[in-house]
Amino acid sequence: MPYVTIKMLAGRTDEQKKALVEKVTDAVVETTGAKKESVVVFIEEMTKDHYAVAGKRLSDAE
Amino acid sequence: MPYVTIKMLAGRTDEQKKALVEKVTDAVVETTGAKKESVVVFIEEMTKDHYAVAGKRLSDAE
Amino acid sequence: MPYVTIKMLAGRTDEQKKALVEKVTDAVVETTGAKKESVVVFIEEMTKDHYAVAGKRLSDAE
Amino acid sequence: MPYVTIKMLAGRTDEQKKALVEKVTDAVVETTGAKKESVVVFIEEMTKDHYAVAGKRLSDAE
Amino acid sequence: MPYVTIKMLAGRTDEQKKALVEKVTDAVVETTGAKKESVVVFIEEMTKDHYAVAGKRLSDAE
Amino acid sequence: MPYVTIKMLAGRTDEQKKALVEKVTDAVVETTGAKKESVVVFIEEMTKDHYAVAGKRLSDAE
Repeated sequence: MPYVTIKMLAGRTDEQKKALVEKVTDAVVETTGAKKESVVVFIEEMTKDHYAVAGKRLSDAE
Repeated sequence: MPYVTIKMLAGRTDEQKKALVEKVTDAVVETTGAKKESVVVFIEEMTKDHYAVAGKRLSDAE
Repeated sequence: MPYVTIKMLAGRTDEQKKALVEKVTDAVVETTGAKKESVVVFIEEMTKDHYAVAGKRLSDAE
Repeated sequence: MPYVTIKMLAGRTDEQKKALVEKVTDAVVETTGAKKESVVVFIEEMTKDHYAVAGKRLSDAE
Repeated sequence: MPYVTIKMLAGRTDEQKKALVEKVTDAVVETTGAKKESVVVFIEEMTKDHYAVAGKRLSDAE
Repeated sequence: MPYVTIKMLAGRTDEQKKALVEKVTDAVVETTGAKKESVVVFIEEMTKDHYAVAGKRLSDAE
């Protein structure tokens, strides 16, 4: 606790994801006082045909 | 805003998904007064072995 | 199935929410071929102090 | 209703998942009084590179 | 891990919720081999005006 | 995009939440290359009677 879910388009590199969970965890610890070992981060990737803004999927907008 | 997540079994065609996000977005705009460009839709697909009703997965029910 | 979750700021009227679930359900049925009685809609309301864009909460932006 | 989502690392066998949804459904029925046919269970699997504790992904910890 | 989210209508007693998380946790441990101390359960309650089946909210159906 | 959901126990101050969304947003921008204005953060608070570890709710553990 806290539990952080990050939902984003697929395509980031493994190094980016590694840095993402490190930096986000540090930000949570610094601002909430949670213990680092209790912070959990989930990454959820989505594809462009499953994500729409204004009624149009990213896969249709290209 | 609003953010709409639609969870359904895999198997719909690309045309169906395209129409789904369009029509759902229109329905949200029409009834909530949200601006169309602020409506976000996510599609999440599930498989029959990860979905159960009454304790039985769809993959076991077939 | 499908299961639709609509996340939005608190503040819509009861009539708006009633119309929202009706129209969204119709849109899902029309485009996916799902039976109407199998479509489930959840509304989740959020408050302005729990929602941020660009690092700023709506409650801080006012 | 209730709707139960079980998020876990990929790797369980099909037999384990079948038993999981059965037993969890029974536990929900027994303790909440819900009818068995109204209990829905979703399984969501995650991979070790998308799950972090204490700022470190499981894929980096190995 | 696993992380279990149980979404249901408000109205269960405190004793029911206590028993629910105990029995569901036991069911997860028994079937997945997860350690009991690693199983996390979240309860999310919804109200009848935020939950609809077949386009009709429970609060409108009464 | 990305969309970040932070689930934690109620009890943090308004200042802590304000700092939390700022720092987490900065961490996401720095590591993923996303534009700051496209990063969305949701805070979800839970209560001790709706959160259990090892089959015991925090409200029962006190």
